[in-house]
Amino acid sequence: MTLRIGIIGCGYKGSDHIDRVANRINGATLAGVADIKQELAEKYAQKYNCKHFETGEELIESPDIDAIMVVTRPHDTHVPFVLKALEKGKYVFSEKPLSTSADDCKRVVEAETKIGKRLVQVGFMRRYDNGYRQIKKAIDEGTYGKPLLLHMTHRNETTVSDYYDNDAIVETAIHECDIMHWLVGSDYDKVSCFIPGAQTKYTHEGLHDPQVMTFDTKNGIHADLEVFVNNHNSYDINCEVVCEEGTIALTSPIFTQVKTQERAQTSIPQNDSFRFRQAFDSEIQDWVNGVLADHLNPTAPTTWDGLMACVAADALEKSRDNGFVKEPVVLPERPDLYKN
Amino acid sequence: MTLRIGIIGCGYKGSDHIDRVANRINGATLAGVADIKQELAEKYAQKYNCKHFETGEELIESPDIDAIMVVTRPHDTHVPFVLKALEKGKYVFSEKPLSTSADDCKRVVEAETKIGKRLVQVGFMRRYDNGYRQIKKAIDEGTYGKPLLLHMTHRNETTVSDYYDNDAIVETAIHECDIMHWLVGSDYDKVSCFIPGAQTKYTHEGLHDPQVMTFDTKNGIHADLEVFVNNHNSYDINCEVVCEEGTIALTSPIFTQVKTQERAQTSIPQNDSFRFRQAFDSEIQDWVNGVLADHLNPTAPTTWDGLMACVAADALEKSRDNGFVKEPVVLPERPDLYKN
Amino acid sequence: MTLRIGIIGCGYKGSDHIDRVANRINGATLAGVADIKQELAEKYAQKYNCKHFETGEELIESPDIDAIMVVTRPHDTHVPFVLKALEKGKYVFSEKPLSTSADDCKRVVEAETKIGKRLVQVGFMRRYDNGYRQIKKAIDEGTYGKPLLLHMTHRNETTVSDYYDNDAIVETAIHECDIMHWLVGSDYDKVSCFIPGAQTKYTHEGLHDPQVMTFDTKNGIHADLEVFVNNHNSYDINCEVVCEEGTIALTSPIFTQVKTQERAQTSIPQNDSFRFRQAFDSEIQDWVNGVLADHLNPTAPTTWDGLMACVAADALEKSRDNGFVKEPVVLPERPDLYKN
Amino acid sequence: MTLRIGIIGCGYKGSDHIDRVANRINGATLAGVADIKQELAEKYAQKYNCKHFETGEELIESPDIDAIMVVTRPHDTHVPFVLKALEKGKYVFSEKPLSTSADDCKRVVEAETKIGKRLVQVGFMRRYDNGYRQIKKAIDEGTYGKPLLLHMTHRNETTVSDYYDNDAIVETAIHECDIMHWLVGSDYDKVSCFIPGAQTKYTHEGLHDPQVMTFDTKNGIHADLEVFVNNHNSYDINCEVVCEEGTIALTSPIFTQVKTQERAQTSIPQNDSFRFRQAFDSEIQDWVNGVLADHLNPTAPTTWDGLMACVAADALEKSRDNGFVKEPVVLPERPDLYKN
Ligand SMILES: [Mg+2]
Ligand SMILES: [Mg+2]
Ligand SMILES: [Mg+2]
Ligand SMILES: [Mg+2]
Repeated sequence: MTLRIGIIGCGYKGSDHIDRVANRINGATLAGVADIKQELAEKYAQKYNCKHFETGEELIESPDIDAIMVVTRPHDTHVPFVLKALEKGKYVFSEKPLSTSADDCKRVVEAETKIGKRLVQVGFMRRYDNGYRQIKKAIDEGTYGKPLLLHMTHRNETTVSDYYDNDAIVETAIHECDIMHWLVGSDYDKVSCFIPGAQTKYTHEGLHDPQVMTFDTKNGIHADLEVFVNNHNSYDINCEVVCEEGTIALTSPIFTQVKTQERAQTSIPQNDSFRFRQAFDSEIQDWVNGVLADHLNPTAPTTWDGLMACVAADALEKSRDNGFVKEPVVLPERPDLYKN
Repeated sequence: MTLRIGIIGCGYKGSDHIDRVANRINGATLAGVADIKQELAEKYAQKYNCKHFETGEELIESPDIDAIMVVTRPHDTHVPFVLKALEKGKYVFSEKPLSTSADDCKRVVEAETKIGKRLVQVGFMRRYDNGYRQIKKAIDEGTYGKPLLLHMTHRNETTVSDYYDNDAIVETAIHECDIMHWLVGSDYDKVSCFIPGAQTKYTHEGLHDPQVMTFDTKNGIHADLEVFVNNHNSYDINCEVVCEEGTIALTSPIFTQVKTQERAQTSIPQNDSFRFRQAFDSEIQDWVNGVLADHLNPTAPTTWDGLMACVAADALEKSRDNGFVKEPVVLPERPDLYKN
Repeated sequence: MTLRIGIIGCGYKGSDHIDRVANRINGATLAGVADIKQELAEKYAQKYNCKHFETGEELIESPDIDAIMVVTRPHDTHVPFVLKALEKGKYVFSEKPLSTSADDCKRVVEAETKIGKRLVQVGFMRRYDNGYRQIKKAIDEGTYGKPLLLHMTHRNETTVSDYYDNDAIVETAIHECDIMHWLVGSDYDKVSCFIPGAQTKYTHEGLHDPQVMTFDTKNGIHADLEVFVNNHNSYDINCEVVCEEGTIALTSPIFTQVKTQERAQTSIPQNDSFRFRQAFDSEIQDWVNGVLADHLNPTAPTTWDGLMACVAADALEKSRDNGFVKEPVVLPERPDLYKN
Repeated sequence: MTLRIGIIGCGYKGSDHIDRVANRINGATLAGVADIKQELAEKYAQKYNCKHFETGEELIESPDIDAIMVVTRPHDTHVPFVLKALEKGKYVFSEKPLSTSADDCKRVVEAETKIGKRLVQVGFMRRYDNGYRQIKKAIDEGTYGKPLLLHMTHRNETTVSDYYDNDAIVETAIHECDIMHWLVGSDYDKVSCFIPGAQTKYTHEGLHDPQVMTFDTKNGIHADLEVFVNNHNSYDINCEVVCEEGTIALTSPIFTQVKTQERAQTSIPQNDSFRFRQAFDSEIQDWVNGVLADHLNPTAPTTWDGLMACVAADALEKSRDNGFVKEPVVLPERPDLYKN
C-alpha cells in the first residue's frame, strides 16, 4: 500500500516537504496540495501531477487523501487543520510550533486524548538529526557520565523583515525549547530570556538581536542558548553537552575541506533545509512508516511535546518582558496517552 | 507508476540494497529476489513480502520484474546476468566491478551498443558522494585552478580471509580506478602498483598490505593511492586534489565531536555502508529515476566506465607482477553511445 | 647588562618560573630564591647555582637582586612582598591574583601612585597567549565587526583537595575576570555566579562544581563562563567572541593528529603549564625587557588590573551567596598612572 | 658564563637568527656579525650593539667570539667557514644544507673525525619541531605499531625568481631528505624524483612545479613527497606516518578558529619562520646549551646527517635527469664519531 499524502501550505517550508514527499520518501505519494493562494496550489499540483484543493478543509475531507501535513503560516493556523484531521480520524503532521497559544495546544491534547490514540506528529525534526541522536544516545547510555550543562547557539545568517522579538522565541528558540528537555529527559523548572545591551547593527526595528536564553530543568541541568538571527555569517547550530566525564557536541555536515589563500576551511550551512536535510527526510519517513503501520513511533514528537515547547516559549516571553528574571514553566498533568 | 525491482544476490551488499529499495527509495518497490542459495532468497522474500525466484534468469524474465539489480559474487558472475537483461530489453544495475575480465566487459559494450541505448548502470557509487561531487564541481568550475596532483588513500579496517592481491585491485582500488579519471576528466596514460618492503603483520598469506599505486592521465595529472586493507584502524577514504590555487579534500561524515580523556575526537567510519550510505542511496535513487523516465542519467556510470576501470585494473596487476614499472592503459575506441 | 632576578615562592608555579628564568628567558639570570620552607629554597638554589635567602624580605633587600618575582601561596601573601619591593624601588612581578582583598590591592595602588611610576606587573599571562592576542587584535581592528557576546569555559581535569568555592573564583575565574574586560576594552557593569542543581560526583565537600558565571560590561557586552574544575577530562580553556560579522575562538595548541581505533583525535592539554607555556614565557620575557628598559610595557597587566579583577571576584562571590542575582562591580576612580 | 656568538651571513635567515640570539635565547649574547655586504653587517652590529667583522674568517678568529653560526648564501659557502671554525677548535652551527656537494661534506667529516669530537651542528631544525618530535616518539615507542608508509608535502606559497629545479631538491626537499630517515631510523636504499606533465602556471623557466619524490629505506619503508613551491596558497608542510595500528600526522600551529562568511577557518602559515619558530628557537637553544656544556646534544643533527641528506639529494637529481627511475643512495661507512 502506498500512503496518499495531502499537504496544506505551499510556501517556503511547504514546498520543501512537497519535494520531499514526491521524490525522497519511500511508501508514499504526493496526492494533493492546498494553499490559501490558489495559484500556488495549482502550480505545485501541476508540477507534481497531483490534485489541488480549494481549501485545507476539502483536502482533509477528501477520500483520496490518507494523511495530512500542515505547513501553513502563520503558525496559529495549524491547530484548526489539526483538529479537523482528528475529527476525520486521519493522521496529521503539523510543522512546528504546533501553535503559539498554549490554549490551542491544549485543545489538540483534549481532542486526541478523547480519541485515545496518537494521530498527531509535531515537526520537531531535530530529534531525527544524526548529531542530536548521537548526543541523546550518549546521555541515555551514560557514556560520559550524567549531563550537567548545555551550551547552545541558534544562529541564522539573516531573517525576513517581518520577524520580531516573539519570533526569536516561537519561530527560532522553539527548537531548543523542544530539544533541550528531550535530550536530558527532564521537564523545565525555569527559563529566562535576556537582551544584552550590545546589539548587531544588522537587526531591524522590533527585533533585539542577539538574545541570550537559559533553561533549568527539574533535575538541575542548566542550559544557555544564544539566539542570533542576523549573524551575517551562517546558519550555525551548536549544542555542547557537558557531562561528568567529557563533552559531546554537534558538528555541521561537511563533505570537503579546502585549503586556499592561507586558510584551511570548511563550509557552514546557509539554512536549515541544507543543515537538517537528513533530519527532515528521516522525520517524514518515520511519520509515513508510522502511519502505514497505523502506529506512530512512540518516540516521535507528540501533541504534548508541542504543548511543552509552547509553555516554555510563553515563559521566555514573560521573562524577556519582566526584567529578564527566571520564570517558572508550569505544565498541566501529563495524560496517559503521552507517557511512553 | 512504481518501478518493480528484482535483486539477484542476497549477500552482504545485496541485502544492503534490498533494505534500501524496500525502505528508502522513492518510486520503486522490491518485487523479487534471487540467490544461488535458495534459502537466503526465501528468507528475504518472506521478510520483505516479495517474490523469490529459483534463478536469476527466471527473475530477469519475469513479467513482474521491471528492472534488475545484479549484486552477485564472485564479480565475474555479473556479466551473464547483465547480458540476459539486455536480451530482455530490461534496465539493469550491476554492482562494481562490472567484471574482472576486460573481454567480458567488451561483450556488454557490444550488446548495449547493438541495442543503441544505455540500459546498464554500473555501481561506482562514489560519483554520488556529496564530497566527491563537491570536488568534481570545484575542478569543473576551476574554483582553485586546474588540478595537478591527487593523493588518495583507501584504507579498510580488515578484510575477509579469502581476499588476495588481486582483490586489492579489482575489489578495492577499482573505486579509485573509476573516480580518479572521472574527477579530472581525462583517460589514463599509465598506472603502476608497488609493493613496499614494510608490510603489516595483520595481513595474511597471499595478500601484500599495504600497496602503493599511481595513475597518470593523458593530460599529465598524477595521482598516488595507498591501498591498506588491514589498517587495524578504520575505513578511511581520503582524496585530496592539489590544484593551482588551492587543494580540496574529502572529509568523513561525522555528526558529533567528543572531548574526553584529554582528547578531542571524531569518529571515522568502520565500513563503506556507513561511510557511503548517502552515496548508495543517491545512486540507486538516480538509477530508479532514470529507469522511470526511460532515460538513464547521462552522467551515471556506464558499461564503458566499467570497461575502463577493468582495463586500468589489468594494467595495475601487470605492473605489480613486472617490477612495479608504469604500465600503459590501452582502451579500444569509445563508441558514440558512451560519449556524453 | 643581565637582569638578576630573585624569586620568592618555590612551589608548583614558583618552580615553573625558576626553570623559566634559568633556562628560557633572554637577558636575565636567576640570582636568588626564597621560600617559607627553607629546604625548598636551598634545593633550588643548589640546583640552579644561585643564592637562597632566609626570607622574602632579605631577598628583596639584597643588592644582588635587581628585580623580584612573587609566587607565594596563599595569594594574600603577595601584597606585603610587593609593597616591600616598592619601598626599595625595585621592579616586582606578582603572580595572579594580586590579592583576594580589594583593600590590599588598593594599598599597592596607593604606594605605586605615590612613586608615580609603574613598578608592578601582575601575572595575568593570558594576555600574552597567541590565541587571545589574535582575538584582541581582531576586536580592536573590527575585523568581524564589533563584539557582542563571549562564551567562555575554564575547565580543569581535577583540583587539589583544599580547593573550595572561593577558589573557583579567585584562583580560577580570576583569569576570565581579567581577560574578558581586556579583550573588549570596557569595564564591568555587573556580574553573576550561579550554581546549577546538577553537580559532578567528582567534586568534594565545600566545592560546587560546575558553576556558571556571567559578565556584563558597561558597553553592553555579555559573557558567560563555565567554571568546571573537576571535569575529569582535560584543561580545556575556550573563548569564543561573537561579533557582528563572524566569531573568533581560541584553539588549544596541538602538534599532531592521530587516527586510531576508528577515531581521529587531537590532544587537549592537561594543565596550564603546558597550555600556556608560550604565554608564560612571553609574559616573563616582556617583563624582563621592560625592567631592563626601565619602562614596563604599557600594555602589561598593572596593579590596577589586579584591583579590577579582585573587585569583580568580590561581586561574583556576593552573587553566589545572594541568590545568584547580578551584582554591580564598583571601582574607585582610575588614577592617571593607570591610563594608557 | 654567557656564550658569545658570532653570526656570518645577515640575509633573510641570518637576520632571523640574529634576532633570535639577541632576544630569545638564554645563556648567549650576540657578540659579532659579518656579511659579504659590509653595510649589512654594520647595520645589524649597530642595531644590536655588537661588533662587526670585515670577513667571516676574522669573526671566526676573534677571541671575542666563542662560537659561530654560518648562515651564508649560496649554500656552498658554508663549508669553508665550517672548516675554518674547526681549525680554530670552535663550535660551529651551519645552516642547512651543509653543502650541495657530497665531497665538501666529506671534507668536514674528515676534519671533525680527526679532531675526534663533534663541533658541528647542522640546521635541520625540523627535528626540534614539537610535531615531528611527537611523531618520532610515537614511532620509537611503537605506539601505533611499526611505521609502514609516509605521505609528505612540502608546499610554499611562492619562490624567489632565481629558484630552479635543483633548488626544489637542495633547498626544499633537503628537509625531508633529513627528516624522513631520522623519523624511521633507517638509511635510504633508493629515491626517485618524478616530474608530472601537469604543471602550475605560476612557475617560471627552469623550475618544474610540482614534483613528486619517493624515498625507500633499507628496512622497506616507503615515503612519497609532493614538492610544490608555487602553490599560490600557503606554506603547507604535511607528514603523515602510516603505522600498523594507526596514523600520526603533523598539524600546523594555529591559535584561533574563525567562523565568517559561511566558513569555519583556520590559518595556514605563510612561511617557515612562522611555521617553525618554535623549532628554530629550540634548535638554537639546544646548540647553545650543548656548547656551554662543551658537549653537543648527541641527538642534534651532525656533519654526518649533512652528508646523508646531500647524498640523497644527489640521487634525487640523478633520478630526475634519468627517466625518473629509482636511484640507489650510496653512503661511505659511518665513522664511529657519528654513531650514537
Ligand atoms: Mg505563546
Ligand atoms: Mg582483470
Ligand atoms: Mg575577595
Ligand atoms: Mg648535490
